[in-house]
Amino acid sequence: MEYTKYFSNVADWAKSNPIRRLTALINRPGIISFAGGVPSPETFPYNEIAEIASRLVHEKGAEVLQYGLTRGNRQLIEYLVAQMQRLGIKTNTEEIMLTSGSQQGLDLLARLLAEPGDIILAELPSYIGGTYALNNVGGTLTGLPMSEDGLDLAVIRDKVLKMRDLGCQVKLIYTIPNFQNPSGITLSLEKRKSLLTLASELDLLILEDDPYGELYFDTPPPPPIKSFDTEGRVIYLGSFSKVLTPGLRTAWIVAPSEIIAKVELIKEAADLCSSMLDQAIVAECARQDLIQGRLGKLREFYQVRCQTMLSALDKFAPKGTTWTRPTGGLFVWVELASQIDTTEMLSKAVENGVAYVPGAPFYVSDAKVNTLRLAFSKETPERISVGIEKLCQML
Amino acid sequence: MEYTKYFSNVADWAKSNPIRRLTALINRPGIISFAGGVPSPETFPYNEIAEIASRLVHEKGAEVLQYGLTRGNRQLIEYLVAQMQRLGIKTNTEEIMLTSGSQQGLDLLARLLAEPGDIILAELPSYIGGTYALNNVGGTLTGLPMSEDGLDLAVIRDKVLKMRDLGCQVKLIYTIPNFQNPSGITLSLEKRKSLLTLASELDLLILEDDPYGELYFDTPPPPPIKSFDTEGRVIYLGSFSKVLTPGLRTAWIVAPSEIIAKVELIKEAADLCSSMLDQAIVAECARQDLIQGRLGKLREFYQVRCQTMLSALDKFAPKGTTWTRPTGGLFVWVELASQIDTTEMLSKAVENGVAYVPGAPFYVSDAKVNTLRLAFSKETPERISVGIEKLCQML
Repeated sequence: MEYTKYFSNVADWAKSNPIRRLTALINRPGIISFAGGVPSPETFPYNEIAEIASRLVHEKGAEVLQYGLTRGNRQLIEYLVAQMQRLGIKTNTEEIMLTSGSQQGLDLLARLLAEPGDIILAELPSYIGGTYALNNVGGTLTGLPMSEDGLDLAVIRDKVLKMRDLGCQVKLIYTIPNFQNPSGITLSLEKRKSLLTLASELDLLILEDDPYGELYFDTPPPPPIKSFDTEGRVIYLGSFSKVLTPGLRTAWIVAPSEIIAKVELIKEAADLCSSMLDQAIVAECARQDLIQGRLGKLREFYQVRCQTMLSALDKFAPKGTTWTRPTGGLFVWVELASQIDTTEMLSKAVENGVAYVPGAPFYVSDAKVNTLRLAFSKETPERISVGIEKLCQML
Repeated sequence: MEYTKYFSNVADWAKSNPIRRLTALINRPGIISFAGGVPSPETFPYNEIAEIASRLVHEKGAEVLQYGLTRGNRQLIEYLVAQMQRLGIKTNTEEIMLTSGSQQGLDLLARLLAEPGDIILAELPSYIGGTYALNNVGGTLTGLPMSEDGLDLAVIRDKVLKMRDLGCQVKLIYTIPNFQNPSGITLSLEKRKSLLTLASELDLLILEDDPYGELYFDTPPPPPIKSFDTEGRVIYLGSFSKVLTPGLRTAWIVAPSEIIAKVELIKEAADLCSSMLDQAIVAECARQDLIQGRLGKLREFYQVRCQTMLSALDKFAPKGTTWTRPTGGLFVWVELASQIDTTEMLSKAVENGVAYVPGAPFYVSDAKVNTLRLAFSKETPERISVGIEKLCQML
């Protein structure tokens, strides 16, 4: 049988993630990998989670093993109200819902906010999961250049007005303001405020994706854009994946209650509810201060690795190579001499024992093929030094 | 701010589930509830799951707390290949993927297979979660009448040909052949084969949703429609929710590999992966024979309750009332005298200490307002007798 005739447009829109296709290559045993953008399993509180999981099933099994509310674990939502307050976001339980990772939040919001053909603005480069979710509902992603302190605002007004002149629908900017995946760039305080003013002027919503904000090294990043939002124009996405564990698929959306109510309806038909055990474990970790209480160590863990990587790049990188100097998060972004195609170079790098992710797939337009993403989360400081030296020797 | 201008069509399509709106009423403390269609928490293997969860986090934490494959836990997929074989479905690991409950399977398949405006055929009555998932992608649900042995096949050909004459796209039949939610009806063996022949003739795909098949009382239901499928025309959905626990959101799809590959791409941008801990717990339960090995007891548990309910109906139901006699599953479907509106009657029933779910919302068209669904899964046999007596006294 031939199935394409049964497929909707979504089948055409849904693209295979080129990074995933490289997985077999990237994950060869023995290799020093700067590829996978995942938190270090060394940071997971195994004993505590094992104890909590067992106790929850014993004591609250009839609840945590049963169907539950689509909106999510009430105790965890209440915890998040307080946490958001700490970041300057005044909110309440009506404005928060839990999702199966921020990826689900992005998908549900994409379904609610983007119509086929809509233009969505995203950073160059940007998180592939976010742009793919928006792409999979038929959205057309348009790229916005960034500089060291984030989005180039001057370009946005011009771009939006031109596109609207051409009859395009532009409703949404997608941004990752803190230690961005993949670039490591942080949007400055001034630009956060200006972006919000601009969004208001152009009547755009802002999708603020913030999985890394708590993973700063020395000083916290500026407050979330959402904290300056008096109009209800910003939708904020937070996640426990990088500050606790990603396998317990638990994240949250903060948005005006009208938006949350609609997202809840879409989630209801999308999966009824997220894992009840995952949510309960995360709620109990929060109660036992295993999230906030472990952040100090976590920041130190990643800072050492980032500094090691930056020092090694300072020492070994050939002339004509530039890279970002992130102040938090998991990623360094490297731009090589313009004639180098990092996708072509990858197999050679792997032969030399080092893996990275080529930069091109992170661009929704105007891809720079001479870029690459380095994650400093997986390897030990020693192996990071060795890996960077090997990579640089190749260049 | 006014948000509707930012919303896509999905915001209009996504309806609020009327059963959920009744939750507060239905869940009043002290009430005898035949409303919630959920498995009994008395059947959950708490000690075993607590032990397994704790051990998995200790021994395999770096895997079960980390991001994982979108396709799902490999060990569990391999187990399912063998399980499907037992039901007569010849398949392989390329044709199976795991989802966060069957609800996610339904949603992902709806996104892949239904275009806005497409006509989708569904049983009258049908599972609300299934029809809502299809509705939320813009599908138009059209109802198919059922008799005691399931779908009325004579109607289908006629309906499809007429709709195609009118220029409508009809690609899909959605059916729950075993102990259907909400009606308790089982599709006969003969009709399963005829339905498949008809689907082939009309070039339709069949979405076979089978969460209850293992919960038969005396004899197994006929083999799945998928077991007779030589063309690759049937997409089968199975779930651990009713045979283990629903809070561990784990279910599966069996479909031709071309379809699975596309569904996997959509899931990747929908949530990256399902709960890694949930999947690993279910896989370990399967390995320890806590699924198959507990089915005998589970069947007995529900059979006693169903028989009690049917006996009480035999004894107390007034003339003019009819009901189904399910041979498995969780539900009995009742049709009252035609002048009774069960939605209007509900608050009076609750005052009298009994809750049920009104039947009308289960119909995608031609709703019978004098129907209701009784779940026999929640209450003890004693309370089932008392509850049915109370309900019948009201009528």
